[in-house]
Formats: sequence, C-alpha cells, structure tokens
Amino acid sequence: MEKLVIVKVGGAVLEDPVTLNDFLCHFAAIPGKKILIHGGGRAATQISTQLGIETHIVEGRRITDAETIKVVTMVYGGLINKNTVAVLQSKGCNALGLTGVDMNLISAVKRPVGEIDYGLVGDITSINTFALSLLLQAGFVPVIAPITHDNHGQLLNTNADTIASSIAVALTNVFSVSLVYCFEKAGVLADPDDDGSVIAAMSLQMYQDNKQMGTIHSGMIPKLDNSFKALEMGVEEVIITNAGTLNTSKGTHLSL
Amino acid sequence: MEKLVIVKVGGAVLEDPVTLNDFLCHFAAIPGKKILIHGGGRAATQISTQLGIETHIVEGRRITDAETIKVVTMVYGGLINKNTVAVLQSKGCNALGLTGVDMNLISAVKRPVGEIDYGLVGDITSINTFALSLLLQAGFVPVIAPITHDNHGQLLNTNADTIASSIAVALTNVFSVSLVYCFEKAGVLADPDDDGSVIAAMSLQMYQDNKQMGTIHSGMIPKLDNSFKALEMGVEEVIITNAGTLNTSKGTHLSL
Repeated sequence: MEKLVIVKVGGAVLEDPVTLNDFLCHFAAIPGKKILIHGGGRAATQISTQLGIETHIVEGRRITDAETIKVVTMVYGGLINKNTVAVLQSKGCNALGLTGVDMNLISAVKRPVGEIDYGLVGDITSINTFALSLLLQAGFVPVIAPITHDNHGQLLNTNADTIASSIAVALTNVFSVSLVYCFEKAGVLADPDDDGSVIAAMSLQMYQDNKQMGTIHSGMIPKLDNSFKALEMGVEEVIITNAGTLNTSKGTHLSL
Repeated sequence: MEKLVIVKVGGAVLEDPVTLNDFLCHFAAIPGKKILIHGGGRAATQISTQLGIETHIVEGRRITDAETIKVVTMVYGGLINKNTVAVLQSKGCNALGLTGVDMNLISAVKRPVGEIDYGLVGDITSINTFALSLLLQAGFVPVIAPITHDNHGQLLNTNADTIASSIAVALTNVFSVSLVYCFEKAGVLADPDDDGSVIAAMSLQMYQDNKQMGTIHSGMIPKLDNSFKALEMGVEEVIITNAGTLNTSKGTHLSL
C-alpha cells in the first residue's frame, strides 16, 4: 500500500512564527501523501481574554461553552488554519484547510455529562475516508483544525491528538500510515527535565512498566495511550518528536 | 454543458440567524451543482471593536491593516464560514468551507497604493478551476469566504461580489453558469425606498440609461458593473434577488 504520513503539531509550536515556519519547511519537504493536524492552545485563551470571555481548564481540558466554541472556531478554524495553509502554499505545498464539519470529515457526539461537564466537546464517531482519499489522490494536502460537528448544525471542540489517531486508524484501509506527533520536547523523555534523555524506542511493555513506576510525565499519558491504540489498530508506525526534527530519525519510535 | 449555480450572499443576511437559516434552506434545495460565496460585513467590525481594533471604512471599503486581516480571517474564514457549513451539513448538503488560499483557489496581488491605501486587499489574478471542478464533480458544495492570498504567504481581504463574478466567469469553460446575488433588498429597485418597485428585467442599455439619470442607488453600481461584465464574459444568467426568494423567479434578471 502507498505510504501516508499524518503529522500532528501542538499548540506551543504554533505560537512562535519562527518555530512554526521552520516546522512547516520540514513538513512541506515530506515526499508523497500527507495530512497535517494542528492544535490551538494558548492563542484561543489569549483572544478569549481580549474578548472578555473567561477560560475554564479542568484537568488540562478546556471547558467549551457557547462563547468559547465561537472563539475556538475563529482561532483554530480561521486564524491558525488559514495562516498555516498560506505558509504551506508559499512553499509549493498544495494545502487546504478544513475542520471536521467540512465534507462531513469528522462526525462526533457531544460528550455526555459525567463528573465534569466539558460543554461543547465532541467524541468522534466517524471519519469520512472517501473525502480524505479523494483529496490525497488529487495531490492536495489536508490541514485539519480540531473542530468536529454533530450533524445537527453544532460545532464541537475536539482534542487534536485524538483526531490525528482516529484519522490515522481510519485510513489504514487505504494507506500504509505513519503517525507523527510533533511538539516542543525532543521526544518521550526518561527525565522530563532533561531534553537529552530521549527514549529512542519504546515498546508497549516498556510504556506500561514506566507508567506503573510513575516515570512517564502525566501529560504524555493520553498521547501515548492514543499512540499505542493506533498501532494496535493497524497504523504502521508512531513517532513522537520535536517539531524541528520532523523528517529525521530523531524522537521516540513506538512499537507494540 | 451542465448547469452550475453560484450564489453570493451578503453580510446583512448572515447577521440574523433566522434569516440565515431560511436562506440556507433555499440554498440547500437548489438541485445539481452549486457554490456559495459569502461576505462578512458587520460581524468583523463588531469583533474588531471588542478586540480594541479600530475599523476604517473609506468609500464603503474596509481598510485592512495587519490586525484587521487577522480579524477578517477569524470571522470570515472561521466563524461565519464554518457555521454556514455546519447548518448546510445538517440539511444534507455536503458543503466544505474554503478561502482563496485553500487549494490555491484564488490568487491575488495586493492592491497598489493609489489615492487610497486599502492595505492588505487583494485584486484577483487567477482562479483554480481544476480544484473547483474536482470538488463539484465529486458532489461537494464549496462555501467560499472572501479571503485570497498572494502566493507568498500573505492573506488578502477581497470583495465577495468580485470573487463571485470571477469564479462564475472562470467556470464558464466547464459549466453553464447562473450567478445569483442575494441580499436584503427584493432586487434592483426603481425607487430605493420602495421594496415593491423591483425591476423584473434589466438590459445593459436600461442599466446605462438609469446610471446616467442617477436613478440607480450608488451601492448597486459595483454589483451591477460586476454582473454585466460577467454576462459579457460568458455567464449564462445573472439574478439579483432577496435572500428569502432564492429559488423562485423573483428579483431582477439581467441581460445584455
């Protein structure tokens, strides 16, 4: 099967224009078919503050009320998405920016209210692989903002890591998929305070042992859970690496 | 040639959720291939004010500085575009929201500084008919926000009426194109204060006579100039009508 590279880039990378430009140079240079999924992060918080909307974060997740979904739609789906596409186009990469509502790419249901009411947050129910395949086969590069919809007119805020792994898994029917998580660290670190302590290769067993010993940084756990789940569901390889070293052999390579 | 309907809807229609929903019902019901182009209007001004950014309008055109293009990208490309797509998707219309940077749909050059410096405003240089045809042939409905790019990473604010007529003209090679301008009035009015005075049919000669006599409302002139130019360049029909009567025979039908 033909190779497809799916890259997810985190919020912190998007905030510095130089780092972002550097990252997009690397991304544009990836040969063949590829998809970029971006987070949003602090830009939404900043614009919310300017608009006088309070931001509520519980356990690292944004509580998305009616005003916040508007801001997220503007910032993720508009500002970040279109500027990313503009930079990629200037580098000869024929990108197009989308959210999960466009072409009905990503359907979701509003997360049921449990101990925490996350508000207008979506849990993914399906990926439109036909639409993504069509764009990829025609030579376009989808750039996806972390917004989904409920098929009844409501946009929903959705975790970008989860979108990346869901798309990766869905496209294993059509492509041999590599999933790359890019962020501000050099990879999965044995010592969170030492950027030189990158674990070059990590098996599922090694991850489970480390998780039990408590040596894996808490913020890494959802990312790694997502990654191993993707491997179990047919994704060829998952790499967690620094945004500046995309397209090299650096970072943490995961295997079952 | 197969028929294609291109509808442009103005800012004022987008501001009222009930009017917008009603309009989108009519739009979703148009059979066959179609494209929607939307303006932005007062929502951008409102968000700018909330963000403490001053809005400068000269001769009805927004002066677009570096801060304003950010707001316009957020509001037109994000908020309005994605909410419109969400409503259309809920009505079974397989829409996707785009700006001119996506798929390199609309290239432009920054308008040269003349008597007025409009700032980051784009004059269209080319339309990617391949990309639009691909989407239309696959059954998707492009929803386009009035933003273009200069191919060097800069987004540019561009008049939505001009985008609509440029796309209409470019696609006459592939389709038999109907161009429909929807706004808050009932059509071209003989008396601007009387919504019952719609001119049902207007020829180029009639337009030129009316323009000379000064009976055509000043804001209508760019719209009508665009419309007759589109007819001269191969667009099959141009209709100027109320957003609530799209899909009926009402409004003003233009001919050469």
